[in-house]
This record gives sequence, C-alpha cells and structure tokens, in this order.
Amino acid sequence: MEKLIRDDETLDDLQLNGIYLIQKKHSFRFGVDAVLLANFARVKKDMKVLDLCSGTGIVPFIICGKMKPEIVYGIEIQKEMVEMANRSAIYNKLQEKIQFIEMDLKDTDKLKKIEKVDVVTVNPPYKLCNSGIINEEDSEAIARHEICCNIDDVIAAAKAVLKDNGRLYMVHRPERIADIICAMRKYKIEPKVIRPVHPNTKKPPNIMLIEAQNYGGKFLRWEKPLYIYKDTGGYSEEIDSIYGRKI
Amino acid sequence: MEKLIRDDETLDDLQLNGIYLIQKKHSFRFGVDAVLLANFARVKKDMKVLDLCSGTGIVPFIICGKMKPEIVYGIEIQKEMVEMANRSAIYNKLQEKIQFIEMDLKDTDKLKKIEKVDVVTVNPPYKLCNSGIINEEDSEAIARHEICCNIDDVIAAAKAVLKDNGRLYMVHRPERIADIICAMRKYKIEPKVIRPVHPNTKKPPNIMLIEAQNYGGKFLRWEKPLYIYKDTGGYSEEIDSIYGRKI
Repeated sequence: MEKLIRDDETLDDLQLNGIYLIQKKHSFRFGVDAVLLANFARVKKDMKVLDLCSGTGIVPFIICGKMKPEIVYGIEIQKEMVEMANRSAIYNKLQEKIQFIEMDLKDTDKLKKIEKVDVVTVNPPYKLCNSGIINEEDSEAIARHEICCNIDDVIAAAKAVLKDNGRLYMVHRPERIADIICAMRKYKIEPKVIRPVHPNTKKPPNIMLIEAQNYGGKFLRWEKPLYIYKDTGGYSEEIDSIYGRKI
Repeated sequence: MEKLIRDDETLDDLQLNGIYLIQKKHSFRFGVDAVLLANFARVKKDMKVLDLCSGTGIVPFIICGKMKPEIVYGIEIQKEMVEMANRSAIYNKLQEKIQFIEMDLKDTDKLKKIEKVDVVTVNPPYKLCNSGIINEEDSEAIARHEICCNIDDVIAAAKAVLKDNGRLYMVHRPERIADIICAMRKYKIEPKVIRPVHPNTKKPPNIMLIEAQNYGGKFLRWEKPLYIYKDTGGYSEEIDSIYGRKI
C-alpha cells in the first residue's frame, strides 16, 4: 500500500472528533478564515454541500466533524491539492462522505453535471490579480490571488450548483464587500447575513463572513462582531471555543 | 419683526460655537444619526456643500460650526421645515453661509441648476415604504420612510449636483447596505470608506456611515467601529467628544 503521508507533508490533528488533515510542510496551509467559514456555515442533517476553492480540504473536514451532511464535495483546480485532500479523506475513513474533484470552477457546464447542493462554501483567493508580484506556478499564489478565478467566477459557480433557495457561505476581505454584493445581486443570490470579524474591539473588521441565498428575498441582517483577540491579549473565548480551546 | 421662534417650537443649544437650532416641539427632531453624519463628513476650507433631506437643518449647522465651508445648501421637500430651518439660519446670523431650498430631490433637472458642489451629505429616510403603517401627511413619517424618495432617488440627486471626484457622505442602516452599494455603483459613485456604528462592543452595527466618491476608483476601506455606549454603561468617550461632553 502506498504511503498516505509523504515526506514533504505533515499530518495535523484538527482537535475535532479525531479528524486529521494532511498539509504540505512548506506550501499553502489553511488559515483562520477557512476555520471561521466552516463554523459559520449552517449545514443541517443530510444536506449536500459543495466547497469551492477547497485547497487542503479543511472546510469539508470541519463541516463533517461538526455537522451531519449527507455528502461534501470539494472542488479544487490544483491536481496536487486534490490528490492530497483525497488522501486525508482516506486517512480519516471519510471517503464516502467527502470527495475532492479536480475541476476549474469556471467550467460551469461541468459543474452543472454534479448534483445540485443545499450549501456552497467558499474561501476564495482574496487579492486582485494586479495587486503585488506573483508567481503563477506557485500553489500559494493561486490560493491567495485571483489568478484562476475572481469573485464573479466564484459566484457564477455557486449559482451553477445551488438548489433554488440554497445557501452560499463565503469568507472574504471587507474591502471587497462592494464587489461581492454586486456580483451576488447580478446572479440573483441575495446577501442575507453578514458577520464582521475584527482583530479586537478597537480595530476595523479584517474578515467578513457572508451568507447569501439563491433567489432570496431582500433582507440583510448583521450579526454581532466576532473578535479574534481579547483587548487584554490572548484569543477570545469564541475563538477558543471554535478551536476546541487547543489552538 | 416677526417672531423667529414660534409657540410650537423649541430653540436648542447645539453646544457648538454658540449655534442654536429651532425644532418642532412634537414633530420630527434630529437624532444621533445626523450628528454622526455631520461629524463623519470631511469638509475642507471653502468647499461647497449640499445637504439632501435636510429636515431641521442640523447637518448644515454642525458642518458650519465645526468646519469652514464656503456655503452649505440644504434641500428639503417639506415647506414648513425649510421655512423653520431658514429661521434658524437667521437666528444664528448664518444666512450668507447656509441656505435652505424647498425642492423635491427627484427633480434632478432643477437640482442641476444649483452650482456643482464638493460634498453632498444625506441622512435619508431609512424604512422601506411598505414597512409598517404610515401617514403620508405626517412630517415624521416623511422623514423616516421612503415616501418621497428612496435610496436610488437620493444617489441620483447626489450625482446631479456633485463635482467630478466630489464626495457623498451618507448615514443609513446596515441592513440596507446592499441596496446602497448597488445604487452607488449604478451611478458610478464608488463607496470608499465605511464606518460601522455599534451600540457597544457586544452588539451588531445599527448605523453605517458611508463615504463615496463620484467616479472614484475601486477601493473600499473600513474604519474602526464607533461605539455609542461603553460596555460598562454611559456614553463612549468618542460620543462625549462629538457632543462636546454635554449630551
């Protein structure tokens, strides 16, 4: 049997029902954004979920660790990441629940062939393609910059796979909120809930969690802020709780 | 000489360079939103300013009390409010600096005949016309509901009077931010700065201050939250400072 974890990889304990995740030692590793997104998404029992820009697969694994979906698909353009994420599924004996598929999300015709889902999650690349020097061959650059997909592409992909009234959960930067809202309206996916995430009570938000509904009615609710740190230092109670107090 | 302050009116000290404001005893009186808006707007020396939905005229009076504009126009649809606000200007001997004009802001042809301005401020009606029972003849209802104008009307009016690269400052409710951003983009007035206002650090934002620029480039910056109250009770230091510590 082939070795499940390779020499350039680590096996990380998610502190969540015994689930472990394989990550590259030196390449893109999951961050707080993906963890907050997975905890923000409301996934009911037996729902079908699809995670776009899935990377290491962190979002599907947290969702399966905390909720009871029927199945979670992960779509990822980078072959090496898809292969690694599928090994994580095997390692956790979750290959019936979590399936990673190598696909360019801009290929909406191909996306439409997957069954329609109740929930789409996405932690897309944040930076505009023209912001900063990037190396197109670098997997970290692909994950962080809009090289392979932009906000419009991501929302078009969600539209292609969501059931009517299905929900899209996105994590992004506050400075892109105008682009996100306008793209959502363009595809008739209505923003319904925004939760701002701030480093602490004295700083502007630096992460936004957004819930939107396919063909949803116009009403947007703001949730109370999530603070990463206490003003007195150290992680906030909510962050400790999300990470199982073991961060 | 006719009496400047009538029996159904009060004369209120704004605690700001000796400026007083006439208000109706029992009808619409200014709120914290207008005060925050006037303090959020960046008005440089000798700029021309136009305040839409001007009501009692509170925003022009605070701007003239704190900054050095060349002139501030106030546009208001309700004749009685315009007449009262102009009496406030006379009382404060500011009738050369502050001029209130009775006008429906939907009449953009008429608006275009006023000179172009550097800054537009607006504290528009917040509520959708179909939300709650309203009396169309009630001045408070006109001020609070979208009876006479909606978000699209307000931004079209700002477009009609703003210089190229001029700034629009708006105060509104967080739940309308998607409508506001989409309307701004429609008129090529780009949202540039958002400051969320929260009752305290534990509550969601309930007021949003938005700065937008006519033909501005796409970059949106979020400012740190403004809290109305301390978590321990009592007004925050920032609110005390805005109100001259005499609220």
